[in-house]
Amino acid sequence: MPKLRLFVADDLDAGAAITLGRDQSHYITNVMRAAAGDEIALFNGRDGEWAGEITTLGKRTVDLSLTERLRDQVSEPDLWLAFAPIKRGRIDFVAAKATELGVSRLIPVMTARTQMSRVNTGRLLANAIEAAEQCERLTVPAVSDPVSLADILSGWPADRRLFVGDETGTGQPIAEAAGDIASGASQPCGILVGPEGGFTPDELDDMGKLAFVTKIGLGPRVMRADTAAIAALSVIQAIAGDWRDSRSR
Amino acid sequence: MPKLRLFVADDLDAGAAITLGRDQSHYITNVMRAAAGDEIALFNGRDGEWAGEITTLGKRTVDLSLTERLRDQVSEPDLWLAFAPIKRGRIDFVAAKATELGVSRLIPVMTARTQMSRVNTGRLLANAIEAAEQCERLTVPAVSDPVSLADILSGWPADRRLFVGDETGTGQPIAEAAGDIASGASQPCGILVGPEGGFTPDELDDMGKLAFVTKIGLGPRVMRADTAAIAALSVIQAIAGDWRDSRSR
Repeated sequence: MPKLRLFVADDLDAGAAITLGRDQSHYITNVMRAAAGDEIALFNGRDGEWAGEITTLGKRTVDLSLTERLRDQVSEPDLWLAFAPIKRGRIDFVAAKATELGVSRLIPVMTARTQMSRVNTGRLLANAIEAAEQCERLTVPAVSDPVSLADILSGWPADRRLFVGDETGTGQPIAEAAGDIASGASQPCGILVGPEGGFTPDELDDMGKLAFVTKIGLGPRVMRADTAAIAALSVIQAIAGDWRDSRSR
Repeated sequence: MPKLRLFVADDLDAGAAITLGRDQSHYITNVMRAAAGDEIALFNGRDGEWAGEITTLGKRTVDLSLTERLRDQVSEPDLWLAFAPIKRGRIDFVAAKATELGVSRLIPVMTARTQMSRVNTGRLLANAIEAAEQCERLTVPAVSDPVSLADILSGWPADRRLFVGDETGTGQPIAEAAGDIASGASQPCGILVGPEGGFTPDELDDMGKLAFVTKIGLGPRVMRADTAAIAALSVIQAIAGDWRDSRSR
């Protein structure tokens, strides 16, 4: 399989000609120092993974011709991560790691104790794309615009279980909570992690009244928000997601 | 409870006088801008957590008088993380996150594909201490000197299950493997994660012949080494470690 992998917007089909944009062309030509005739793997989240041969190599434009489908598009977990924005660096890290761990949607949520007032969703998406290219995913997670806690809860789909990180220590142990949804088929679900300092008592009380919410506990230590997000994703994926089967590649 | 927490080497007991070293004194005086009379929480990994009142506050020396024990020392999981060193930044991150997740020992392991030839164990320990102070642990993980893969395996305790991250996709799904050791009492175990690029086929073959080794799989995506370490720790802790009980604080 080709070593280089790129996410593109174009439709991918046998014989299609693809022209990379300026940033990707620069990356291929100047950073990776590819040569005409080299193969690159492409995916768009819809048409599987394709091998593309470099036909024209320029500093600002790279043309590719698709040769063969390397992998069919497969269904991926329907797992959302909603999280209170944290400072740059840590939030980039959450976007990249969550992508490797298999989330389908990243949702910045503004809570009472959230310190950040702005979220650069473009940068979050760029981090997610880079991680998806490296981890061999066939999709890139969607990145939602920031939303208030009240709004995300009022619009939350009733059939999507929401695991809320409860740092007071009274939540259901996460392995037990994940086991409750681990039936044969994967179910849509989501994880919500608060900011450093956690949710307010009122926020936790209000969420506890919602039928689709399960408050979860992550053990006796106090975790940073980014650690809690990654830990919760890992456990849900291992117990109720697509880590239950061996990788077959 | 006092907000500031520090790890010290001194014995902690009622009425004891503690003099902080230069770095911690600087931190307390100039960074946190504490005042005489303020309380700080101290732990040493042996004597629980104690409140100390600042009696002398100087730029280079801070003296404390211990007033009361805030928490008794409790037993913590006996969980080792052995990992191939990765570049600075990512390895600091592993040390900090693993501490939050509750590891008891960090062991840098040199494998065939490991790119780093040196490991700054002092910096790893500093990252672990800082994370332990913040996450309210009562211990700091031990940091071992780097060891070759052959040596760690030949000296591995036979009664300590070793979960080896098998990136070929043929390992046992981690939730299943963790479930196999999740009896009533916590068991000593360890996790071994390879470098970027994984273990060599020979390394995996050799490890597969050892009775204490279980090769584990972490789902269909290819994870970076640091992600794999954090994900594996989270799942083991959730299923077989001390996350099975609610936090009672």
